[in-house]
Amino acid sequence: MTPIITAFENSPDRGRGLARDMRVRWALEELGLAYDVRLVSFAQMKAPEHLARNPFGQIPTCEDGALTLFESGGIILHIAQHHAGLLPEDADARARAVTWMFAAVATVEPPIVDLTMAMLFERDKSWFAERLPVLQAAVRTRLDQLAAHLGDATWLDGAFSAGDLMMVHVLQRLGSSGVLADYPTIAAYLARAEARPAYARAFAAQKAVFEASQAGA
Amino acid sequence: MTPIITAFENSPDRGRGLARDMRVRWALEELGLAYDVRLVSFAQMKAPEHLARNPFGQIPTCEDGALTLFESGGIILHIAQHHAGLLPEDADARARAVTWMFAAVATVEPPIVDLTMAMLFERDKSWFAERLPVLQAAVRTRLDQLAAHLGDATWLDGAFSAGDLMMVHVLQRLGSSGVLADYPTIAAYLARAEARPAYARAFAAQKAVFEASQAGA
Repeated sequence: MTPIITAFENSPDRGRGLARDMRVRWALEELGLAYDVRLVSFAQMKAPEHLARNPFGQIPTCEDGALTLFESGGIILHIAQHHAGLLPEDADARARAVTWMFAAVATVEPPIVDLTMAMLFERDKSWFAERLPVLQAAVRTRLDQLAAHLGDATWLDGAFSAGDLMMVHVLQRLGSSGVLADYPTIAAYLARAEARPAYARAFAAQKAVFEASQAGA
Repeated sequence: MTPIITAFENSPDRGRGLARDMRVRWALEELGLAYDVRLVSFAQMKAPEHLARNPFGQIPTCEDGALTLFESGGIILHIAQHHAGLLPEDADARARAVTWMFAAVATVEPPIVDLTMAMLFERDKSWFAERLPVLQAAVRTRLDQLAAHLGDATWLDGAFSAGDLMMVHVLQRLGSSGVLADYPTIAAYLARAEARPAYARAFAAQKAVFEASQAGA
């Protein structure tokens, strides 16, 4: 059965691939799986039909037969456990890849979201100048640690995995912040991921949705 | 082989069970598994020996034979996949429990950490009075949604699972904020979890570590 994911009808990132449906699209493309997309408006995301898919009213969700999942991490782990290609066969390496998935969303993403949201929405606040360096320092702490771990390796732990996929997408949100300029090995890590054909297919698919929404607007 | 977890030598929460080793202790107690604890100081957490366990220099970690994991979510999922008791047998229900684990750390925890950290460290800042209601509103949005999902159910999705364990521990951090007073069904959900014998054993174990650190100080 073809899974159905949800995505923004009109993504606030204007097709830059930063919405979290991109993670699931990319994972499905890496695994060579077809999928359908159900676009939802902001109003629909808060309505009962979507809250039944995700109680927190967010995208993406994934309907796979009778199973409905939410959270990009939960969806991708489920898909990756049932189709070879995004998790190592070796049990220990597989557990480490899952740990990197959690590290991406629980340890690396929160300070990045805090920084990028402040840069978007708090520039006119009296506190912006004082808080900005604090938020930047929190992000830099994680990037320093990530760069130290990565070293000259191609991926976080052996072959490309769902852990890399999640981490790359979390880091991409820093694109317009300028912070990555000081982290050439992390920038190169992102560039390697973005060069994957599956990434390009997923990016084009989400961009086409945004462009169609503009054409019809 | 007995797993070895790491925990704070001197926990900043003063034994209130809010440090993330509590999650792993609780999971191990639910599964009836013995474990050893390696206490680490703040200096040790940033030293090479611990960074080899967790590149981000945090607790908990878990050494299980040749495998070392970090991130409470990654550790608990690994343990729960190898020992019955914290994940449903049914494949779809199991995938939903894992989704709740991700929801706890990726969607519910970040606004709670933002609020509680501001309440701890930003009370003397010029922006505190203006930011506090914004931070509280972000938490209330998630609590409203969680209460709507939970309704009168005992746990998030059928039997108690690793998803409940993670969600409960994330929510407990709100204890001193006063916010939970407006959410009686969530407060009752926490009370049900805290009444579990495995919870009590884990709580006592982490509290004993803090009390010993004070006795020796």
